[in-house]
Amino acid sequence: MSARNEVAPLQFTMVGLGRMGANIARRIQRHASSAQPVTINVFDVNPETVKSVAAEGFNGLSSLADLAQFNNAENPQVVWIMVPSEVTAATIKSVAAHLAPGSTIIDGGNSFYRDDVANAAWLAEYGINFVDVGTSGGVYGLERGYSLMIGGDKNVVDRLRPIFIALAPGVDSAERTPGKTGSVSDSEQGFFHCGPVGAGHFVKMVHNGIEYGAMAAYAEGLNLLHTAAEGIKHPTAVGSHSETKYDLDMAEISEVWRRGSVVASWLLDLTTQAYAEDPELAGYTGAVADSGEGRWTVQTAIDAGVPANVLSASLMGRFSSRGNDLYANKVLSAMRRKFGGHSEATKKTD
Amino acid sequence: MSARNEVAPLQFTMVGLGRMGANIARRIQRHASSAQPVTINVFDVNPETVKSVAAEGFNGLSSLADLAQFNNAENPQVVWIMVPSEVTAATIKSVAAHLAPGSTIIDGGNSFYRDDVANAAWLAEYGINFVDVGTSGGVYGLERGYSLMIGGDKNVVDRLRPIFIALAPGVDSAERTPGKTGSVSDSEQGFFHCGPVGAGHFVKMVHNGIEYGAMAAYAEGLNLLHTAAEGIKHPTAVGSHSETKYDLDMAEISEVWRRGSVVASWLLDLTTQAYAEDPELAGYTGAVADSGEGRWTVQTAIDAGVPANVLSASLMGRFSSRGNDLYANKVLSAMRRKFGGHSEATKKTD
Amino acid sequence: MSARNEVAPLQFTMVGLGRMGANIARRIQRHASSAQPVTINVFDVNPETVKSVAAEGFNGLSSLADLAQFNNAENPQVVWIMVPSEVTAATIKSVAAHLAPGSTIIDGGNSFYRDDVANAAWLAEYGINFVDVGTSGGVYGLERGYSLMIGGDKNVVDRLRPIFIALAPGVDSAERTPGKTGSVSDSEQGFFHCGPVGAGHFVKMVHNGIEYGAMAAYAEGLNLLHTAAEGIKHPTAVGSHSETKYDLDMAEISEVWRRGSVVASWLLDLTTQAYAEDPELAGYTGAVADSGEGRWTVQTAIDAGVPANVLSASLMGRFSSRGNDLYANKVLSAMRRKFGGHSEATKKTD
Amino acid sequence: MSARNEVAPLQFTMVGLGRMGANIARRIQRHASSAQPVTINVFDVNPETVKSVAAEGFNGLSSLADLAQFNNAENPQVVWIMVPSEVTAATIKSVAAHLAPGSTIIDGGNSFYRDDVANAAWLAEYGINFVDVGTSGGVYGLERGYSLMIGGDKNVVDRLRPIFIALAPGVDSAERTPGKTGSVSDSEQGFFHCGPVGAGHFVKMVHNGIEYGAMAAYAEGLNLLHTAAEGIKHPTAVGSHSETKYDLDMAEISEVWRRGSVVASWLLDLTTQAYAEDPELAGYTGAVADSGEGRWTVQTAIDAGVPANVLSASLMGRFSSRGNDLYANKVLSAMRRKFGGHSEATKKTD
Repeated sequence: MSARNEVAPLQFTMVGLGRMGANIARRIQRHASSAQPVTINVFDVNPETVKSVAAEGFNGLSSLADLAQFNNAENPQVVWIMVPSEVTAATIKSVAAHLAPGSTIIDGGNSFYRDDVANAAWLAEYGINFVDVGTSGGVYGLERGYSLMIGGDKNVVDRLRPIFIALAPGVDSAERTPGKTGSVSDSEQGFFHCGPVGAGHFVKMVHNGIEYGAMAAYAEGLNLLHTAAEGIKHPTAVGSHSETKYDLDMAEISEVWRRGSVVASWLLDLTTQAYAEDPELAGYTGAVADSGEGRWTVQTAIDAGVPANVLSASLMGRFSSRGNDLYANKVLSAMRRKFGGHSEATKKTD
Repeated sequence: MSARNEVAPLQFTMVGLGRMGANIARRIQRHASSAQPVTINVFDVNPETVKSVAAEGFNGLSSLADLAQFNNAENPQVVWIMVPSEVTAATIKSVAAHLAPGSTIIDGGNSFYRDDVANAAWLAEYGINFVDVGTSGGVYGLERGYSLMIGGDKNVVDRLRPIFIALAPGVDSAERTPGKTGSVSDSEQGFFHCGPVGAGHFVKMVHNGIEYGAMAAYAEGLNLLHTAAEGIKHPTAVGSHSETKYDLDMAEISEVWRRGSVVASWLLDLTTQAYAEDPELAGYTGAVADSGEGRWTVQTAIDAGVPANVLSASLMGRFSSRGNDLYANKVLSAMRRKFGGHSEATKKTD
Repeated sequence: MSARNEVAPLQFTMVGLGRMGANIARRIQRHASSAQPVTINVFDVNPETVKSVAAEGFNGLSSLADLAQFNNAENPQVVWIMVPSEVTAATIKSVAAHLAPGSTIIDGGNSFYRDDVANAAWLAEYGINFVDVGTSGGVYGLERGYSLMIGGDKNVVDRLRPIFIALAPGVDSAERTPGKTGSVSDSEQGFFHCGPVGAGHFVKMVHNGIEYGAMAAYAEGLNLLHTAAEGIKHPTAVGSHSETKYDLDMAEISEVWRRGSVVASWLLDLTTQAYAEDPELAGYTGAVADSGEGRWTVQTAIDAGVPANVLSASLMGRFSSRGNDLYANKVLSAMRRKFGGHSEATKKTD
Repeated sequence: MSARNEVAPLQFTMVGLGRMGANIARRIQRHASSAQPVTINVFDVNPETVKSVAAEGFNGLSSLADLAQFNNAENPQVVWIMVPSEVTAATIKSVAAHLAPGSTIIDGGNSFYRDDVANAAWLAEYGINFVDVGTSGGVYGLERGYSLMIGGDKNVVDRLRPIFIALAPGVDSAERTPGKTGSVSDSEQGFFHCGPVGAGHFVKMVHNGIEYGAMAAYAEGLNLLHTAAEGIKHPTAVGSHSETKYDLDMAEISEVWRRGSVVASWLLDLTTQAYAEDPELAGYTGAVADSGEGRWTVQTAIDAGVPANVLSASLMGRFSSRGNDLYANKVLSAMRRKFGGHSEATKKTD
């Protein structure tokens, strides 16, 4: 690289080309500043995927060993790992084997923050930097940008800012918070260096915990509204004096809340989309999965002695949605039969 | 009242001969003091039931109009109503039509305490006394006695003490509370005049709320223990690092807690009985019913601004056990598909 | 009605000039269509308030009796009542006394939907229409518009559409839901006729229940993040093996989530504003009030047998925030001392 | 010991002479069968404690090194460790250093079951057996006996049965479960070999989780009853239409439930004792501590995907009782001020 004023392109590789990984590569490609260009390699365990994604203008790697060629003491390379959490540890090991000191590994997946601390420690012995990036945005991230919560050493993170700027939505994607004027902070662009290694995933973990709770709030409320309509057909069971009989149009109510109301949110926007496509939500089973972050959030709250009743209830509601309360309920039925001679009715299945 | 020293028998009628009503009549018959005898009439809407129960030594009434013959200004009659809560109000009206002033109606069912206040008010216009009795004991009450929570005017309640003494378990049914010596209080015998009209059902309502919470505590714990055994066969789902793999014998664990442990209780005794009869609880569906008191307890707590997280969770767990969370869970699934492209798995049904 | 093509102005009166009432009058004044003009009277129990608000270009009434002059069989008047819920019933009575048949009373406050049904019934005897409008938008409504959830007879509600259109935010205030094209529905403008009398307040009640749950989700998550910083100073108590030690900047994290993240919402926008003004939230006591809708939502869910664990937990968290769990906790302490000899520590007060 | 038919006394040492450890030694001393005598050594880090307890007829050790003299291949010694959980690991290490192969270490404290597995593994390398015993019974255990939940290898556990029999309450301490006849099982005596290493502490952990939930059920219910009396003096706050005004005698209500009611339990017995001594519970602060088992239970339930709403709520209620919800509530207050202009009232402090 000869000319004055020319900046060496940041050497970047995305490992893991699932929806999130591929889209992140694409967004960097489209939004990287010309003042700080980025060259992008892509790799996946599935060679077909590499071929297909590389065709969009990336440099496809045929194996992780190919990473070695990008080692450069003057311009150390950066590898973003975006793989399922159960193979993250192994992938970090495999990647590190081909990196020179000074390189940086980013774990952009949904890893547990305590694992970050362990990973950073052993990578440090090889002179490899570690950065954890909690990444929110889902399938819409390519278009809307990603919210990035970052942990790591400040100087390491600073060098990666061109990538984060490309990925983040930018300040114009929401109205500025009243009172904030002048130069735009990182957080206003949509990325933030939260603290040392693990802080990014810690903040992302709690972010997802909040997501669980907020989702459940909508779901419970919409269920109650929906039941009001049901009530017309099925007068409610014992103990109820319900006069709640409105045949409500759920899709319209979801829509009306999107403008001006206190509960307007992106989750509500998505719910409204779902209703627009499937007004009865007939295409959903209601067996709701959960992933690590929701669990870790509540477990961490317990470790810290912090009450998290809503987050816990939202998490456990998912367990129940998959039928994991069945045995507990049999115990209740058994007690009721013993002390009161009660026989239980049958379960609503649809 | 003719002879010196002779006490006129208390004229008592049981209206409603379901399991609870019939057993209460039986226990009064067996345990009434000879110093204060009680004559017992029985009535039910089903004449066959009257016939069958009367054969045990009671005076069967063929209609509520028969009550009129027991009106006696010197020795006013007492009518205990023990019918399903949805017909209680109508039954009180029907009974009152045949009673003279000075008579007493006891509502011994699971009525809402605010209804008592209304009932007492209009009965007072006819000079009829009203007493509410919250009655706990279930199918075991005949043998073990009933715990009685009583509301009403003091002088009216006092006249009924012979009945309450006959029904209550008596002080010997549990060790005396350390420090209590000398004469035995009503509460130590197992009945208590809680306060004015409604107080008995209010206390019974909360008693049942506690019952819901305590039942759920056992059920959740036993479910977790049971899952440890399940875990051996079905290694747990995403996000779990469970090492919890013990093939525990639930029936034995329930039994071992009955002696010496902090969680020893009558509910645990009953659970242990259920396990002894059906170790896998295979005969229970797990669709758990709920009745008025559980609901009223939480609603009253909300009226009073008193947190009741555990009681609320135990109540709502029963709603979920009957599948009433289904639509809420579909909403969650819909959100997840929209933001993350997730498709949900299917529900565990057994 | 003199000239051809001229539309008689809708005769409108706002009763109750608190922040919400006055702002609603103002927004109608500013946004009513010239094709359907609205004349606006204002009234409040405080004459000074009437004077002050009327000075902004409204017709101030000196008493509710002044309403009589606007009775007009050809062009019936509309009165919007926006007073504290505890005086709503009395205010409706006072207003109705001066209205002719064909007039319409709108209850725009936070009334219980079952009260609407009762109010509509007796007003109907006088030929007065009743419409309930759940109004969300708070102090920002004047500028951003209000989300309106409406209950009442269709023909009565239809005549009021010019008012609702003026008050609602309009379709441009949010991106249209993907797939929705062509003419804009009422709900897309920000108002919706939910159903018969009571349906508006029913939907608004559940809306506020969702608001409680979503707020609690953020609050619990932010508390956990905040505690991570606390942890550096105060290593956590018994039973904790917390490694959670990050000195996080809450204001920045709140800001970063506003763009691109799954938890972006108006509640988060407001939280970020609060942090921008008071980064330590030092100006808040943390004794959180609650109002009718949160309570009614959970009570109605219980009536309907619908689980609402998250909404209930968020409501009860507010009761605890005001210290209403104190006696329950003393009971726990007492039990612990009796079975384990434990003495409790003192309460964290700051 | 010379004669035929004589059984060598089991060589037993209690390490840790706090209330639990000392009482366990005492109960073995008093209840060991003459057919299988037990010699008992005692040790504590505090020499004064050793001296004082040894004076009751035990052999006091001056240091753990004294254990070495009891090593005997024919009659291997048994050491029960009963120390605070934070020093358990270190104490096991110190004890093991003086034991010969074939000896057995019992961890009778409240250890995490996964730690047992680790401890057993390294002790096995030295030929030392490990047994975990979850011990319930509290300060009453000396008199009433302990409920024992045991994990370990069957042959190792079997050799310790004389100790467990001495410690357990015995079958007569509760009525036999209906249908159980003939020879008495271990669980009916009050001890049970639950499974391999860790199973004892796993079952004890869940036992304590249940304890948390059941305690909270009583506490919430009693709080609601207590509030009814409060209501007479302080008419309740906004949103309440409470007619709940009974001046209830909490101590009497607690007592009346002890006989015949569904909620009769040992926890209720203890609560009644507390009321008998301090009817207003004035001596309790209501800042409720929690220990490892409650936390681990919920965390393990989350690992296993098992809903535990009640256990979680009871745990988190303790965090709130210590003020750990303060910051979350400030966040709620901040949101409310921003969207509604609300200012919060002050917190109830007594």
